[in-house]
Amino acid sequence: MADDKGDDSVAARTRAAVVDLLGVLAYGELTAFDRLAADAHFAPTLGGRAALAQMAATEMGHFARLAERLTEMGVDPDAAMAPFVRPLDAYHDSTRPSTWLEGLVKAYVGDGLAKDFYREVAGWLDPSSRDLVLEVLSDTGHAAFAVREVRAAIAHDPTLAGRLALWARRLLGEALSQAQHAAADREALAQLIVERSGDLAGVGVLFERLTGRHAERMRALGLSS
Amino acid sequence: MADDKGDDSVAARTRAAVVDLLGVLAYGELTAFDRLAADAHFAPTLGGRAALAQMAATEMGHFARLAERLTEMGVDPDAAMAPFVRPLDAYHDSTRPSTWLEGLVKAYVGDGLAKDFYREVAGWLDPSSRDLVLEVLSDTGHAAFAVREVRAAIAHDPTLAGRLALWARRLLGEALSQAQHAAADREALAQLIVERSGDLAGVGVLFERLTGRHAERMRALGLSS
Repeated sequence: MADDKGDDSVAARTRAAVVDLLGVLAYGELTAFDRLAADAHFAPTLGGRAALAQMAATEMGHFARLAERLTEMGVDPDAAMAPFVRPLDAYHDSTRPSTWLEGLVKAYVGDGLAKDFYREVAGWLDPSSRDLVLEVLSDTGHAAFAVREVRAAIAHDPTLAGRLALWARRLLGEALSQAQHAAADREALAQLIVERSGDLAGVGVLFERLTGRHAERMRALGLSS
Repeated sequence: MADDKGDDSVAARTRAAVVDLLGVLAYGELTAFDRLAADAHFAPTLGGRAALAQMAATEMGHFARLAERLTEMGVDPDAAMAPFVRPLDAYHDSTRPSTWLEGLVKAYVGDGLAKDFYREVAGWLDPSSRDLVLEVLSDTGHAAFAVREVRAAIAHDPTLAGRLALWARRLLGEALSQAQHAAADREALAQLIVERSGDLAGVGVLFERLTGRHAERMRALGLSS
């Protein structure tokens, strides 16, 4: 009986971690929608504006899938998102782009980092949750768009590279800081990460993988990390 | 030969009117996306925010259909939208909502009026263009949402009704004023409207129908028109 109880509590904790992951992803989609919509408004051409607005619309398709799954699990999507409103809003408030290019770098570098992290966590989940997470993390075409626009701008004016590299480092710092706050608050998700990474050293290895991929993205943009 | 030339020029004018209609609709979808996205950000609940963001995403689905059709016709969507950027932006700049409720009234009353007008014009087009226009004008659920929210707010605070009614009348005035500017610039579209209405008296009858439906929407919101 003690064993059963142990199993139950592992199942309950795993379920709580899945709800947390779907909740943070859902709120992430809503904020991605907001940012893409705002960036669309500042696009220098009608074509660029339409492209970004289309990407924003795709994020809402992902949001709908996550909300649907949470509802199927008997969880109110608003309740699942609620714990992540403060840390995600804090990250976005502290990294508000002041130019079109800063917005593109933020979307590529910041979202890329978050997506890599969510993909790692997804690998530890049941196949159905994992597939859903990988589906909503699929690229909306924004990454290639951002790389193209940023590289073209730097080719035109190489002095931009230094400022944008500083900006990207600030994004990394703020993202890690808010992720720490979120993890401290969400025990089930934090515990899943430590357990599945093996131990704290495993978490260190995970972070090395994430920062390695971050450096690759910086290189793709033509920026030093 | 003179007849052929006459037919050609009728066909060319009709084609120009169709391009104009698809162009103004496409730019209208882009601006609808912007406004819904901005309103979503000011929604009082996460649920309301998600609902409006979903509606914005639906508008972009409509936009994609219109851009696709224009491309099929050999017309660059950006070029088709260009003539309507100034009048639509002028309308939106002069009617920027300052509250959540003003935004909802604008979306319901302003978009309702525009959609009624586009539906009238669509009735004069070839079946394939007509079907596309009617499809992209289909309701995204926003109308029922706006009516519910505005009526609930007025039930809670009846003093809102007077201010919102004034706001709606200003929307009507600005919309008609900008429509006149646009019509003066777009000969093919204006000519199609006059021809198909029969004559200028027919245009008057069309406007009576449009203002009649506007009054119905005002009643649905619980506002005097």
